[in-house]
Amino acid sequence: MSIEETIREMAEAARAASVEMARCASSKKDEVLLRIADKIEAEASHIQGENEKDLDYAREKGLSDAMIERLTITDATITSMADDLREVAQLEDPVGAIAKTWRRPNGLEVSRMRIPLGVIGVIYESRPNVTIDAAGLCFKAGNAVILRGGSEALNSNQALADVVRDALRETGMPEKAVQLVPVRDRDAVDLLLSQEEHIDLIIPRGGEGLIRFVVEKSKIPVLKHYKGICHVYVDNGANLDMANDICFNAKVQRPGVCNAMETLLVHRLIAPAFLPEMADRFAEAEVEIRGCAETWRILPRIKEATEEDWSEEYLDLILAVKVVNNMTEAIRHIQTYSSNHTEAIVTSDYERARQFVREVDSSVVLVNASTRFNDGGQLGLGAEIGISTSKLHAFGPMGLEELTTTKFVVLGDGQIR
Amino acid sequence: MSIEETIREMAEAARAASVEMARCASSKKDEVLLRIADKIEAEASHIQGENEKDLDYAREKGLSDAMIERLTITDATITSMADDLREVAQLEDPVGAIAKTWRRPNGLEVSRMRIPLGVIGVIYESRPNVTIDAAGLCFKAGNAVILRGGSEALNSNQALADVVRDALRETGMPEKAVQLVPVRDRDAVDLLLSQEEHIDLIIPRGGEGLIRFVVEKSKIPVLKHYKGICHVYVDNGANLDMANDICFNAKVQRPGVCNAMETLLVHRLIAPAFLPEMADRFAEAEVEIRGCAETWRILPRIKEATEEDWSEEYLDLILAVKVVNNMTEAIRHIQTYSSNHTEAIVTSDYERARQFVREVDSSVVLVNASTRFNDGGQLGLGAEIGISTSKLHAFGPMGLEELTTTKFVVLGDGQIR
Repeated sequence: MSIEETIREMAEAARAASVEMARCASSKKDEVLLRIADKIEAEASHIQGENEKDLDYAREKGLSDAMIERLTITDATITSMADDLREVAQLEDPVGAIAKTWRRPNGLEVSRMRIPLGVIGVIYESRPNVTIDAAGLCFKAGNAVILRGGSEALNSNQALADVVRDALRETGMPEKAVQLVPVRDRDAVDLLLSQEEHIDLIIPRGGEGLIRFVVEKSKIPVLKHYKGICHVYVDNGANLDMANDICFNAKVQRPGVCNAMETLLVHRLIAPAFLPEMADRFAEAEVEIRGCAETWRILPRIKEATEEDWSEEYLDLILAVKVVNNMTEAIRHIQTYSSNHTEAIVTSDYERARQFVREVDSSVVLVNASTRFNDGGQLGLGAEIGISTSKLHAFGPMGLEELTTTKFVVLGDGQIR
Repeated sequence: MSIEETIREMAEAARAASVEMARCASSKKDEVLLRIADKIEAEASHIQGENEKDLDYAREKGLSDAMIERLTITDATITSMADDLREVAQLEDPVGAIAKTWRRPNGLEVSRMRIPLGVIGVIYESRPNVTIDAAGLCFKAGNAVILRGGSEALNSNQALADVVRDALRETGMPEKAVQLVPVRDRDAVDLLLSQEEHIDLIIPRGGEGLIRFVVEKSKIPVLKHYKGICHVYVDNGANLDMANDICFNAKVQRPGVCNAMETLLVHRLIAPAFLPEMADRFAEAEVEIRGCAETWRILPRIKEATEEDWSEEYLDLILAVKVVNNMTEAIRHIQTYSSNHTEAIVTSDYERARQFVREVDSSVVLVNASTRFNDGGQLGLGAEIGISTSKLHAFGPMGLEELTTTKFVVLGDGQIR
């Protein structure tokens, strides 16, 4: 069978399975998730054996240590995949919930009922645990899913997908509800992205290159985020200890992630009191500061920032700092350079807190809290499948609800127009 | 200036205007809408004079009577554009509404706040009133909008856009909040569809050709519906008078629209009692029936349906009829041929009503009511900008709320991770 036929058959089979998925009871879905969790633990040595094949090949090809680390399924990876599934089983099922009901003057009762999206394609890179995480979330939300992992992880992904298939079969659910593209060929991605008749949504997970490629090629709607250039603005009159803790946490706690702070904006009047102590703490944590001319006047040891620094996602212990004349200038800077991901203000002023919240156009806007809270788990959505920085369908962390949509249900007793 | 520069400048100006639009008070937006309405009436003769130019050219080019009718701005068109704007001004402003609020264990208060999408591009065909209708809805929802109408309506659209621009200027709002592409050149559409940095959503309004073209070319998310192949299923034991009224209404009241019934499915046991009387009423209304073999056995005068009839959107006084053995067969037929637009069941059975609602995967599913109710106004959303048959972002009629999204607002008192 050609790759073209393989992909088309997978998409058609997913569409058929999605019909059964849509009417599946929550308890049944949870049973499947728990069974997959148990089987991952029971078959850990087989899974790790298959993973070893991928690792051998990766070493042979001379992949970087970082790549090999991401590819490795450790005992901890096994436990975490199983635990994550058990957590997803605990989450409330969004499907069937009635979002709203109202009655029309002619007696029609109208409501919006939450339903699965249908078929979701997930395209990801080297971490094999995404196979389980993505499958679990899409499945719980009542969708069929087609997974396309990195070619260097095919044996690992296949072993995990086999576990899922066995669990589906043993529980009497359609095996095609979760499918993995079984070939390394790159054409498979293009083919997947053109199955607009059968796939309702594409979620790419990986670096900016992968995401741009998918957006460029896809005929199917894509939920994505490119990058997080997150700002913290420290307002005049802010509590300086609080500002210090929030900025330190936002930059240092995990610098390599999308919700870490990349640019710090500081009000001119508070900068001389705030920046030196803050800079000392950053220096201890080996954070490199690149500042505007005014910052440099206060902190003469630092590097000067260039125009490029304001739009750089460092994902590292580097921080751009800019002193601003007022909040309006801070908001204007954010409007110019932000990636619409996460911005925070540290302030004691009620009016400015309100204005910042109203005017900053990012998926998560925080007052007096770290940018690191832009995360489905932290915000109470349960597990997340990603963070959307475009506004259609979902904006911000995407949990189970974002993997569903609503249809209108209209109950009448013979109404006509 | 080249077309390329024109379109890019328009998109950039729209993005800038959208910032001001997002923080504009409801009362201000309503003031603008009411002023546009008044000005359309006051400047009716100028608008109709410009429309006359388009009509002269259309007659010269030999456009069809139907095209010319769509293009004509009558006195009634003027009144209806003004009245529609006054109605939109009455609708509740979705922007700023808090959809949900919850508190996290660490004291963070999380909420989802409704915000405008930003910049919306509307691409439409010959009816000039879309200029006003689309602009009014997008504007009320706090968005900037770029309009691209049919080239044959450019003078009419320009006259209407000038009225809007004057109203914006007189009320101190940014003129670039509503812009019309000022050139006939077809390249302008392609260029518009590649401004993904500055335009957040594209809404095509027109025939299937236009919509497919836009989906194919756009790098920006598109909200669309292709067609409505709407089904009514008459269940065994249904109230026959009710079924007769609903089917007649769904087919005959306005056959040329997307929510009209195209296929009637009838339970085998009720078909002999239901179909003859129904067929007589349809015959009086000059509806042509194309039936399956079993229908033909009951109604020997009719044409036989071919496979193509089940997926045809007639938009005319033609109806495909199929007799089915049970509801499962009806649902399977719908799954195969439906366009996910609108389906209805006429039944007296509680269980089957529930099952139909649960299992039919269309944007509006009705029990004992006409398919003609799939309409924003009829369902109580106020005016609508279209009906989406794809599931991302919006599924079904799209009102003001569907022209917005939500961001997360997080209020803390120093929380860090």
